[in-house]
Amino acid sequence: MPIDYPDPVRLLIAHLKALPGIGPRSAERIAIWMLQGGGRKAPDLARAIDLATSSIAPCPTCGFFSESGKGCALCEGADAAGRDAAVICVVEQPTDVLPLERTGAFKGFYHVLGGRISPLDNISPDDLRIAGLLDRLRLGGVEEVILATGSDVEGEATAHFLAEEIRPLGIKASRLAQGLPAGGGLEHADELTLFRALDGRRTL
Amino acid sequence: MPIDYPDPVRLLIAHLKALPGIGPRSAERIAIWMLQGGGRKAPDLARAIDLATSSIAPCPTCGFFSESGKGCALCEGADAAGRDAAVICVVEQPTDVLPLERTGAFKGFYHVLGGRISPLDNISPDDLRIAGLLDRLRLGGVEEVILATGSDVEGEATAHFLAEEIRPLGIKASRLAQGLPAGGGLEHADELTLFRALDGRRTL
Repeated sequence: MPIDYPDPVRLLIAHLKALPGIGPRSAERIAIWMLQGGGRKAPDLARAIDLATSSIAPCPTCGFFSESGKGCALCEGADAAGRDAAVICVVEQPTDVLPLERTGAFKGFYHVLGGRISPLDNISPDDLRIAGLLDRLRLGGVEEVILATGSDVEGEATAHFLAEEIRPLGIKASRLAQGLPAGGGLEHADELTLFRALDGRRTL
Repeated sequence: MPIDYPDPVRLLIAHLKALPGIGPRSAERIAIWMLQGGGRKAPDLARAIDLATSSIAPCPTCGFFSESGKGCALCEGADAAGRDAAVICVVEQPTDVLPLERTGAFKGFYHVLGGRISPLDNISPDDLRIAGLLDRLRLGGVEEVILATGSDVEGEATAHFLAEEIRPLGIKASRLAQGLPAGGGLEHADELTLFRALDGRRTL
């Protein structure tokens, strides 16, 4: 029988390999690290995983992370009363919320889809929080929905699908502008970005 | 107060970021994954970390992974009796053992240092299992020590340090050959590799 790692090490490597973006090499490297000096922190990671997976659930309203029984920081946080209930910004992931918040340019509410429509990954509209979004809109009071899904093919398709669903409700659907990133010269922009920057040009 | 993730999520991201090779973006991505669909496996990872960190310890003899109370697969495994006790191969990490085993070209025993001498990382000879190696050699019966540390600066320095320690014991110290990798053309080899390939050329 060829030499192999003890079972607990092989199990650990297998579970690490299942993480997104972690290949066999990285998984081995992380496992080694956990089992050696740096690994005094590994049990803390295990505790953090347990705490987060047991105590965090999507907010029933917007889908952002919320601690069970505490309500999410967006819908029920201290500044919720000061937010503009007439605008909802639809994003793919909970992680898309903080970058938008940091701009300071948006003061409405959010709706997290939990992904985007992607037939290749077997993700259909039913797998996203689209019904919840339409329920919110039917409650009234919303004038504009900003579709802030990604500017890639799946993000575009998801935005167009949502726009079709929203239109019959008489609510305006908008999309984030596409064009040159700030500080980027023309030479770094790909063709599609340039096309969209031209297409969306604004009169000065 | 700006919007942020709930504490358990921030804690999880912080612990993931501490893993080697995991940056802030990857940590966020993995945390999201754990808290969404794919995350049914996350508690299993937590269990695997606990099991491995509590049950795995370096073999007291060679430093390879061993399950507490079971002895390591190299020193006490089924094929230990058939191994050549006259040759010890010194490697940096437990993960270096399996690739060497797979070659089928080495039938001796191993000694895992647990790293390499690296003043920049504050790793001195005292931090490695060098005393244990010298103890093994002083027991007698070993004729050759193959220094299979890496071919980078720290690996070379570690090998030279060990060679100085081993020489007084009257035991032969050798080093893995350096040169062109199998299947690699000259055009892909860097200067140092070519220099070493020339330097170590063999008469046909």
